[in-house]
Amino acid sequence: MKFPPVKEQMDAILHRVEEVITEEDLERKLERSRRQGVPLKIKQGFDPTAPDIHIGHTIGLEKLKTFQDLGHQVTFLVGDFTAMIGDPSGQDLTRPRLTREEVEANAATYRAQVFEILDREKTTIEYNSTWHGKLSFEDVIRLSSHCTVARMLERDDFTVRYSQNRPISIHEFLYPLAQAYDSVAMEADVEIGGTDQKFNLLLGRTIQKEYGQEPQALVLLPLLVGTDGEKKMSKSLGNYIGITEPAAEMYGKVMSIPDGLILPYYRYLTDLAEEELRALERDLDGGKVNPRDLKRRLARLIVAKFQSESAAREAERAFDRLFIEKQIPEDIPDREVCAEEDEIWLPGLLKESGLVGSTSEGKRLIRQGGVYVDGERVEEERLEIPEGRVVVLQVGKRRFMRVRFVG
Amino acid sequence: MKFPPVKEQMDAILHRVEEVITEEDLERKLERSRRQGVPLKIKQGFDPTAPDIHIGHTIGLEKLKTFQDLGHQVTFLVGDFTAMIGDPSGQDLTRPRLTREEVEANAATYRAQVFEILDREKTTIEYNSTWHGKLSFEDVIRLSSHCTVARMLERDDFTVRYSQNRPISIHEFLYPLAQAYDSVAMEADVEIGGTDQKFNLLLGRTIQKEYGQEPQALVLLPLLVGTDGEKKMSKSLGNYIGITEPAAEMYGKVMSIPDGLILPYYRYLTDLAEEELRALERDLDGGKVNPRDLKRRLARLIVAKFQSESAAREAERAFDRLFIEKQIPEDIPDREVCAEEDEIWLPGLLKESGLVGSTSEGKRLIRQGGVYVDGERVEEERLEIPEGRVVVLQVGKRRFMRVRFVG
Repeated sequence: MKFPPVKEQMDAILHRVEEVITEEDLERKLERSRRQGVPLKIKQGFDPTAPDIHIGHTIGLEKLKTFQDLGHQVTFLVGDFTAMIGDPSGQDLTRPRLTREEVEANAATYRAQVFEILDREKTTIEYNSTWHGKLSFEDVIRLSSHCTVARMLERDDFTVRYSQNRPISIHEFLYPLAQAYDSVAMEADVEIGGTDQKFNLLLGRTIQKEYGQEPQALVLLPLLVGTDGEKKMSKSLGNYIGITEPAAEMYGKVMSIPDGLILPYYRYLTDLAEEELRALERDLDGGKVNPRDLKRRLARLIVAKFQSESAAREAERAFDRLFIEKQIPEDIPDREVCAEEDEIWLPGLLKESGLVGSTSEGKRLIRQGGVYVDGERVEEERLEIPEGRVVVLQVGKRRFMRVRFVG
Repeated sequence: MKFPPVKEQMDAILHRVEEVITEEDLERKLERSRRQGVPLKIKQGFDPTAPDIHIGHTIGLEKLKTFQDLGHQVTFLVGDFTAMIGDPSGQDLTRPRLTREEVEANAATYRAQVFEILDREKTTIEYNSTWHGKLSFEDVIRLSSHCTVARMLERDDFTVRYSQNRPISIHEFLYPLAQAYDSVAMEADVEIGGTDQKFNLLLGRTIQKEYGQEPQALVLLPLLVGTDGEKKMSKSLGNYIGITEPAAEMYGKVMSIPDGLILPYYRYLTDLAEEELRALERDLDGGKVNPRDLKRRLARLIVAKFQSESAAREAERAFDRLFIEKQIPEDIPDREVCAEEDEIWLPGLLKESGLVGSTSEGKRLIRQGGVYVDGERVEEERLEIPEGRVVVLQVGKRRFMRVRFVG
């Protein structure tokens, strides 16, 4: 195989990453790969408990795509082993136990979504249960002999919990070791992950060395803050923008971000050149541009990227109809509501959304003509859920809520 | 099956133990066992890395024998699983890796020795590799989810090492869990162990509960201090008296103990009644008796117990010949020396023992008639090793060393 010059590869890989550990290791690997004509093995792990891929994930997927375009071998690793075990101590509700079927279904969803970005033909998908399912107690003892308790307690979350006397079960120490062992089993040359994975990825280097392998190089990517402007984007926090969400919803969510996220979103989610990014920053800081206009452009760019130009234009028109013509404020709170059916009982929904105190108040307000859905006054108690499965509820003049229906 | 009344059983079990956890649990188990006519399952674990059984072990074995005599089912558990793994981090030299053959050989030695005390027909021997060899990574995760890092760090040795920043490998946390799981696999009702095993045995109670079993009762026995008067008796520290050692050696070792050990040895190794023990203590404290005479009686009792009355008498006579008639002091240092053959080169042995500075000095002193073995002047450089494989070397008037030859 023929690879581009190492300098060129390094430039592409280092573009908008937070940290590479170490650049020397990466460069040496790229040089050897090019000399021998052998592609590097690139690993990125995904948690199959939350199948929907959001735009925060795309930062990593696009870096994976960069490696793929350079000719390297990319493996999308599904971390199904621990997902199927869950948290046996029952202390961690974010680690539910998945069945083999659920893992398969989630992985299928993943596959469908990641090939929006990755090249299907050139991507290997692996499941870490393939090797972890074969490890014996003796293997686990060997694996865990290569890390000390003190080092493990240096991981930020463990440090905090230990110092606050909150329990840490011993099996929680085995998960980072399992993830590190993935790199051994895959003989990974490079692992890609968010900066919050730095400890685990570094442990992969240690464990590879202990198993006689050359340690992987690490490519650490920035974490995208969610639409709330506070926490890392995550499905479970409800502050995410899914890459397969309806265009109107995606557009609306971008419009709802706080101004402080405008620049990071431009930086990590669009192709704007460095120079242009700096110009945007200057304009924003100097008050020369209305943040709202920057958000509109950002929303268009993001919808166009994940859907199409025409979808972006249509989403913008729909947004304007709703929020400008109907005078609905843009920064209204939103909430997810479970709805299996295609229609829902509005008084119940109003109460669940907290817009009214009781269903009878909801019924009365509907009768009195004080309830609006997407800016239109409603007269019936049954509400048909629109195709996009998002509605803006309005009670009276000032109480708004954007509701997204989830199945 | 028919069992003695519970009160009677409790008296026999509680005799000279350090602690029972809990007496209520033990009593309840004994009552149920008696009511249903089902024997209790009694567990005691042994480390197969040091096959020779010494008199310190006999305290536990005799308690096991007590249960056996009461009609309960006694299992002698060989902890071969971890012995075959050793310490993969290579940090613990006292945990060498044993092969399956070495474990078998050590277990055979054990068996030969423990049946000096236990009833061969009524004793089950198990190996914990039977179940640990079948555990998967998932099983280990489940097992380790039932103990927190904070609790594990409360174990004395871990606390000390952690506070002194000395490394603890994570696999070391798995060993107590493995030992605790033994109780689950065996469905143990009672576990017997030294007070230094209290943490591990308590963990067995916890883990049994987590696996839906009734927690085992613990019978904690005193640790016998070795002949040096300082540390727990242990083969690796060389301060032990093996139960199959030659009578003369056993006798000599008892005579070498510091006076402070006289009472504990009487208490834990002889059948003297409590009243008589108190009388001994009074006499000793009041200076009414020469400690040397108490040691002679103790040495006779111990040799008689593990060998025979006649062997005890013969050992005493040999001791007197050597130490009284030849005027060799009794409290001379001793040392173990490796010797595969039946004879050894004396100048080399003198140098190795530190009695001379060089082999040529040794040769000269032999020529000059200044070297004695067991009180007899030697004239040749070759020394035939006597059957008991113990000799007292003497150089000049005042330099002595007792040497024990090991294979």
